[in-house]
Amino acid sequence: MPTPISGFSKLTKEEKINWLATQYSFETKNTIAVLKSYWNNDTKLQQLHDEFIENTISNFYLPLGIAPNFLINQKLLAIPMAIEESSVVAAASRSAKFWLERGGFKSTIIGTEKVGQVHFIFKGNGEKLTNFFSEIKTKLLSSTKHLTQSMEKRGGGILDIVLRDKTDVLSDYYQLHCTFETKDAMGANFINSCLEQLAKTLKNEVKNYTGFTVGEQDIEVVMSILSNYVPNCVVKAEVSCPIKDLKVKADITPFEFANKIVRAVQIANVEPHRAVTHNKGIMNGIDAVVLATGNDFRAIEAGVHAYAAKDGHYRSLTNASIKNEEFRFSIELPLALGTVGGLTSIHPLAKLSLELLQKPSAEELMQIIAVAGLAQNFAALSALVTTGIQEGHMKMHLGNILNQLGATSEEKNILTKQFNNETVSHTAVADALKALKNN
Amino acid sequence: MPTPISGFSKLTKEEKINWLATQYSFETKNTIAVLKSYWNNDTKLQQLHDEFIENTISNFYLPLGIAPNFLINQKLLAIPMAIEESSVVAAASRSAKFWLERGGFKSTIIGTEKVGQVHFIFKGNGEKLTNFFSEIKTKLLSSTKHLTQSMEKRGGGILDIVLRDKTDVLSDYYQLHCTFETKDAMGANFINSCLEQLAKTLKNEVKNYTGFTVGEQDIEVVMSILSNYVPNCVVKAEVSCPIKDLKVKADITPFEFANKIVRAVQIANVEPHRAVTHNKGIMNGIDAVVLATGNDFRAIEAGVHAYAAKDGHYRSLTNASIKNEEFRFSIELPLALGTVGGLTSIHPLAKLSLELLQKPSAEELMQIIAVAGLAQNFAALSALVTTGIQEGHMKMHLGNILNQLGATSEEKNILTKQFNNETVSHTAVADALKALKNN
Repeated sequence: MPTPISGFSKLTKEEKINWLATQYSFETKNTIAVLKSYWNNDTKLQQLHDEFIENTISNFYLPLGIAPNFLINQKLLAIPMAIEESSVVAAASRSAKFWLERGGFKSTIIGTEKVGQVHFIFKGNGEKLTNFFSEIKTKLLSSTKHLTQSMEKRGGGILDIVLRDKTDVLSDYYQLHCTFETKDAMGANFINSCLEQLAKTLKNEVKNYTGFTVGEQDIEVVMSILSNYVPNCVVKAEVSCPIKDLKVKADITPFEFANKIVRAVQIANVEPHRAVTHNKGIMNGIDAVVLATGNDFRAIEAGVHAYAAKDGHYRSLTNASIKNEEFRFSIELPLALGTVGGLTSIHPLAKLSLELLQKPSAEELMQIIAVAGLAQNFAALSALVTTGIQEGHMKMHLGNILNQLGATSEEKNILTKQFNNETVSHTAVADALKALKNN
Repeated sequence: MPTPISGFSKLTKEEKINWLATQYSFETKNTIAVLKSYWNNDTKLQQLHDEFIENTISNFYLPLGIAPNFLINQKLLAIPMAIEESSVVAAASRSAKFWLERGGFKSTIIGTEKVGQVHFIFKGNGEKLTNFFSEIKTKLLSSTKHLTQSMEKRGGGILDIVLRDKTDVLSDYYQLHCTFETKDAMGANFINSCLEQLAKTLKNEVKNYTGFTVGEQDIEVVMSILSNYVPNCVVKAEVSCPIKDLKVKADITPFEFANKIVRAVQIANVEPHRAVTHNKGIMNGIDAVVLATGNDFRAIEAGVHAYAAKDGHYRSLTNASIKNEEFRFSIELPLALGTVGGLTSIHPLAKLSLELLQKPSAEELMQIIAVAGLAQNFAALSALVTTGIQEGHMKMHLGNILNQLGATSEEKNILTKQFNNETVSHTAVADALKALKNN
């Protein structure tokens, strides 16, 4: 039975690993060797990665793949994707090529507004609070000057502060609802610093406001924090072509194919069980680029799925339509991204990914990532409404199992053919390989 | 201007990288060297990682950290977390220690049912379809026998198939709504293979059913696919203690602290702008373990956020309450996870992570990961309702900037003190370091 530990974070990396191996008797005896085999030889580079977070013991590898041939707003890009799931990069590449030959992707920014809130409890007269707020609004703003100066130089800053009365949903609950423009920064640190300052100023001003009773002066700031729900930081991406150009397979006409895609999107709009998976596939493409460029995929995921549910019913992020012989396919989603700050320049591969993307502004990165999501959905739907997705998945799955079992190239060739019409499972493949070796 | 490429996937890894470097004139001249510096020396291990996905050019590093001292259902665990964001592992560790001293975490499985659907269009008499379905249901099930055999041996399989009439939301739209038990496998391949078989059988049986008119026989299967929306694959995790034991800081009483946590959760329940960020923080903990154990975080994210919005209003995943001098804090969320199959045994660090967690079943992993989410939320709320989150964040942020600027240990010490009361920004830190070096 392991025992609790104090001061784990103060151990060296080696000591941490040794402690783990002693406490948790690993089945694999070479645990320590496995962990170390993932360390980088360059100790300085390794130290950089170790210090990104706390208690680091090794580097978890995600494959970094490339999807070339993306024509986005007339610019030809190769998109870096960090993802462990097979077929995602292949699907993106296939879509990119397909639409390259049909005019490419168009993407436009709809908004870039970020949000943050100071949540507080005020037990008193709401009208007095409103008057108080109008009187101190300028003071609130000016109290953040030392924080906003450099952002303002770059064209950003606090856009507005609004007092919101939320007492209809929770008694005595009010907000300072603040909107921000953070330009090429994702802005979390900037926004949170501003909000914490605003909360401080608010508390001070309330205390000094003679219009309040002593009870009213006793407001309680519950918390001050940015929101990952950014329904006004939105980008759109789209493709279109004459229906007749949608010849994808021998056994389906362009018109049938277009109709099936439209139908599949309609289904994702009315059936949440399908919508969630439909959007999950989109996020395969989105997150892979978010990760590769040093952005925070949890923030993106939360914002996107809440956006998909914004009208009270969880829906598809993409739209498909047929009009005047033309097929149109588009996506609209919120993406709060940064191309400066955070890990974007500190993680060498995030920096390299941004260079590969030609050092995009945050707005350009929003456009690129929205396109990656749209491309992913097009590939997924194309497979789903024609051959189904298992054909491709099973091929990759078989390859992974054969690698794991240490099959030779020759054995791989033979078994790939053999499993063309058989169900791939670990046991079935292991048995077949054994049989092959015994022959 | 770069040019399109055909057959990129057929190039060797070296050729891919060279092509990228030629086409996209990188600013950093040593791009190729940087990419290669992330390759593993062990060429066989590197090949394994290269083949997880397509067009791989390098390994994207995510730090693998350890949060020790998690007492879960009376078992003491050290939890592996793969995440690039600072403070997450530290926060998890802090919560683990805090609750270790207060009885630990309790976690229970509420359900493990997975879902998949065959979506189809039937233009005809709905009643006839219902009769047809009752007649062929057994045939549908038995047609999947070759796929379900081995899963049934492990206690899983298809639980049920239901015909759903969805014509009220989309004309002529019906589903075979199928439920599955997939035991320790996440089950995506199993479910999709079953569904594609069910769709095939359905089409054949419809064609041979004499009760249908020729028009009715012409059903259209739009797609067959598992759902990542799994509201019946749910786990709960909880902690509780007497309020008096909640002494966390000198300047706040246990009672005030408990009340503020409850208030913060109430706010996340009524205000979507807060709920999204509240849940995002939970997902920091969840995804880090999902990634470390070789599971698919996009699937988890999609299922969790849709679940948070299931009553038409996006809400908090956690609950907090005070009753009879006791503080209770809990989480309930859907987690469709696997501890066999997929990358769980193929990715050496995923395998090692599962060994560190004492080779959990899928149900045990659900419990562990739910606890990681709950711990994360407790730490985040504790910081938010007391000192705010910027204090901790800024410290890590400063450290990262100083590393990037190549500051020595001595310089780090001096500047860490100096920035105690100053706003951390890249420019400010760079200026301060320059000034220090010039002195």
